[in-house]
Amino acid sequence: MTKQEKPLILVTNDDGITAPGIRALIRWMNGLGEVVVVAPNSPQSGMGHAITIHETLRCESVTMDAGPQLEYSCSGTPVDCVKLAVHELLDRRPNLIVSGINHGSNASVNVIYSGTMSAAVEGAMQRIPSIGFSLLDYSWDADFSHAESYIKHLALDVLDQGLPEGVCLNVNIPKATDEPYKGLKVCRQTMGHWEEDFDVRQDPTGKPYYWMRGQFVDSDGGSDSDIWALNHHYLSVVPVQFDLTNHASLSTLRSRFEHES
Amino acid sequence: MTKQEKPLILVTNDDGITAPGIRALIRWMNGLGEVVVVAPNSPQSGMGHAITIHETLRCESVTMDAGPQLEYSCSGTPVDCVKLAVHELLDRRPNLIVSGINHGSNASVNVIYSGTMSAAVEGAMQRIPSIGFSLLDYSWDADFSHAESYIKHLALDVLDQGLPEGVCLNVNIPKATDEPYKGLKVCRQTMGHWEEDFDVRQDPTGKPYYWMRGQFVDSDGGSDSDIWALNHHYLSVVPVQFDLTNHASLSTLRSRFEHES
Repeated sequence: MTKQEKPLILVTNDDGITAPGIRALIRWMNGLGEVVVVAPNSPQSGMGHAITIHETLRCESVTMDAGPQLEYSCSGTPVDCVKLAVHELLDRRPNLIVSGINHGSNASVNVIYSGTMSAAVEGAMQRIPSIGFSLLDYSWDADFSHAESYIKHLALDVLDQGLPEGVCLNVNIPKATDEPYKGLKVCRQTMGHWEEDFDVRQDPTGKPYYWMRGQFVDSDGGSDSDIWALNHHYLSVVPVQFDLTNHASLSTLRSRFEHES
Repeated sequence: MTKQEKPLILVTNDDGITAPGIRALIRWMNGLGEVVVVAPNSPQSGMGHAITIHETLRCESVTMDAGPQLEYSCSGTPVDCVKLAVHELLDRRPNLIVSGINHGSNASVNVIYSGTMSAAVEGAMQRIPSIGFSLLDYSWDADFSHAESYIKHLALDVLDQGLPEGVCLNVNIPKATDEPYKGLKVCRQTMGHWEEDFDVRQDPTGKPYYWMRGQFVDSDGGSDSDIWALNHHYLSVVPVQFDLTNHASLSTLRSRFEHES
């Protein structure tokens, strides 16, 4: 980046390009750099790290509002959007990727199912500093305004100092109340899982179909976890890595499985 | 599990229920326990940890061949299949989940994009010992037979001894040659990433569409990585975890981001 150039900020999400969460994020990022939006043209929640390889991708330049940002609406997943932006649409590498603001929590294991967070993880895999933001409020009328100063601060800090190699940030924001947020808390991912409970119905021809529903089971008790921080009205910041190796078990498994033939 | 009961083995994959890789795996698992197959009715490669929440799921009992296994063909992703099996279709918890045999490599960062491996990761999240198997051969006529004894050995070992909590196994198998495999190597995930190169074409109306293509860039040099093992004709075994927290950076990021207000 030369001194004349403003930082290039890529904005994406998984709720789709028209979602209020991404519109707020775009407005705020316009104050920090040159913004290009490449976001899905339809809801992509729960798409995880899916990529489109069996179908073609569509992507078109669109004008959504009067802001200075460039925008592209894409038929694919959030990870497709990052790949298409970085390797096809942008004429230089972005200095920062921000994803969100997601409508709903991506704390704990939700990070794995989340298209919003998978876009940030893909950014880290492409060695671009990346942050995913999520608000614990599913409503389309959610109040994002209390998070503005925190989100700008984090984006500026990461533009300035970068992030450790192979790491992106998963930032979750409590639902807005009359109380101001207490600050940022750097946390680990809460241990927990989803217990699904399928709603079985019959279609008009009598054939069964299923709606996935679920209950989150928190099996953590620690005060250094992201759900603890959110319950105490802090914004949680989890450093997320894409190296899935469980290094701790390597030596035990070596003595169990490796036998020279 | 009572003494009378055989272990219950859930089999899934991402190439779809008719793929030769899953048919081989089902045959071999039939010798080790009671087998139930819940697998996608269409190819789901590259679906990562996607789940189906905006659409309904279909799932029907099917008979694919003369084996003793029960089979269900499902409209969803590999992770949907695991959730549907564990929380709706099965009358007891499986003792083991095996996913694959995938047609193509899931070594290095491919683990993150892979539906086959995401099914195994979901199994670990549900606290069920789980293994994903992949053969480095995309051909539908691939020769899986050389892997039979290794796959049975690993499945029996994991049925017997389980796996560390929060960990599943990512097993990749070199393409069969005249040389026998050298054995199992417990490895870490190779550092690398995909550089996409989009093939831009025009549809009959003149509108552009994109095909995603890519080149894998190996930025690792270590002899303890899964790609090293595969290049040296070992089967690679990577312990994979779903805790994405980068614990190493927690304290640095705490001093950078946490300021009591």
